[in-house]
Amino acid sequence: MTSKQMPIARRGLMLVLSSPSGAGKTTLSRLLLKAERGVSLSISTTTRPRRPNERHGQHYHFVTQAHFDKMVKRNAFMEWARVFGNCYGTPRAPVEKALRQGHDVLFDVDWQGTQQLREKAPDDLVSVFVLPPSAAELKRRLKKRAQDTHEVIATRMSKAASEMSHWAEYDYVIVNRDLKRAFAELRAILAAERCRRERQTGLSAFVRGLMAGTS
Amino acid sequence: MTSKQMPIARRGLMLVLSSPSGAGKTTLSRLLLKAERGVSLSISTTTRPRRPNERHGQHYHFVTQAHFDKMVKRNAFMEWARVFGNCYGTPRAPVEKALRQGHDVLFDVDWQGTQQLREKAPDDLVSVFVLPPSAAELKRRLKKRAQDTHEVIATRMSKAASEMSHWAEYDYVIVNRDLKRAFAELRAILAAERCRRERQTGLSAFVRGLMAGTS
Repeated sequence: MTSKQMPIARRGLMLVLSSPSGAGKTTLSRLLLKAERGVSLSISTTTRPRRPNERHGQHYHFVTQAHFDKMVKRNAFMEWARVFGNCYGTPRAPVEKALRQGHDVLFDVDWQGTQQLREKAPDDLVSVFVLPPSAAELKRRLKKRAQDTHEVIATRMSKAASEMSHWAEYDYVIVNRDLKRAFAELRAILAAERCRRERQTGLSAFVRGLMAGTS
Repeated sequence: MTSKQMPIARRGLMLVLSSPSGAGKTTLSRLLLKAERGVSLSISTTTRPRRPNERHGQHYHFVTQAHFDKMVKRNAFMEWARVFGNCYGTPRAPVEKALRQGHDVLFDVDWQGTQQLREKAPDDLVSVFVLPPSAAELKRRLKKRAQDTHEVIATRMSKAASEMSHWAEYDYVIVNRDLKRAFAELRAILAAERCRRERQTGLSAFVRGLMAGTS
């Protein structure tokens, strides 16, 4: 028996983080990707024009509408949506490859994207909703960018409320009162979900080895 | 809105730890109870005679067989079993009180106890199975007590194998290769399960407050 040193084979998981903008999701994602080996961010494919500071394959895969339509047709997306005339989608192949290899994939999608992902891969999905600590704090964060008009802020608030209304569709909810604590909770969720029996695909063989050794 | 400082009301959870003896479950329990506020060990009721080093209400509630039978009759146990002529049971009332108050309860029970607890309280139960790192290591740990006869060890091995055969009934599986790591995994499971949406009974009211503040 050399099972002592061999890690148990494991299937990766899909960690979905959603929240109204201004709740700290982007910061939490960045911290997680920095701290956790074995987690990578899912790179979306989009038809929206590349901005000067963006790199193909890092921020997005930038493609033409014709290319995007073809991908939709051959079911190459796990989820996709049209937002303000531009299309955004999560390509399926890299996600499935990562999961098979025991790597986890982080998704920064809204409740609609989460619903589509859950439909496609219910067993692999771990969904986390991040809430702001209070309405006052949310308002403060949404108003922060000084150049925004009253109208822009109102639109942002209503979008935040609409996103928040879907909190009850998520497995876990983190209230981001304190970034350090919220981050610890996010890491605990990832660590715990990695210990779920059904993700540890090598357990069956491992226990067979243990049982054989005791008889 | 004063929601910023108020913790979200939460229902406690029942953390069940099972393992073959020699896998480190007792050490992990002890470490958890020491490190985690808000977790207490469920004290069993038993008909077995008190040993000199045991205290009533700390190690067990020691009762007569007649008393135990009455408790069974009025459905006062969440689970109970007869082992070598003695009865052991988990009294229901203190567990339900703790859960209502947002406290977590740790259970050190075998697969049969776990099955009964799961039947009684499926939504509150979080079950963790601890495995030894290898058959050789398990053997070594089961043999450690020098005074044991070959027969006693064989019985212990066969009991361990029989307990291990139920690993697939648990939510989480921890392979105890390294105590520090196994303990970190156990704590992550507890921390994550506390973030589960359905345990945070105060979320609904909290989000209503957030939504009201954004309109």
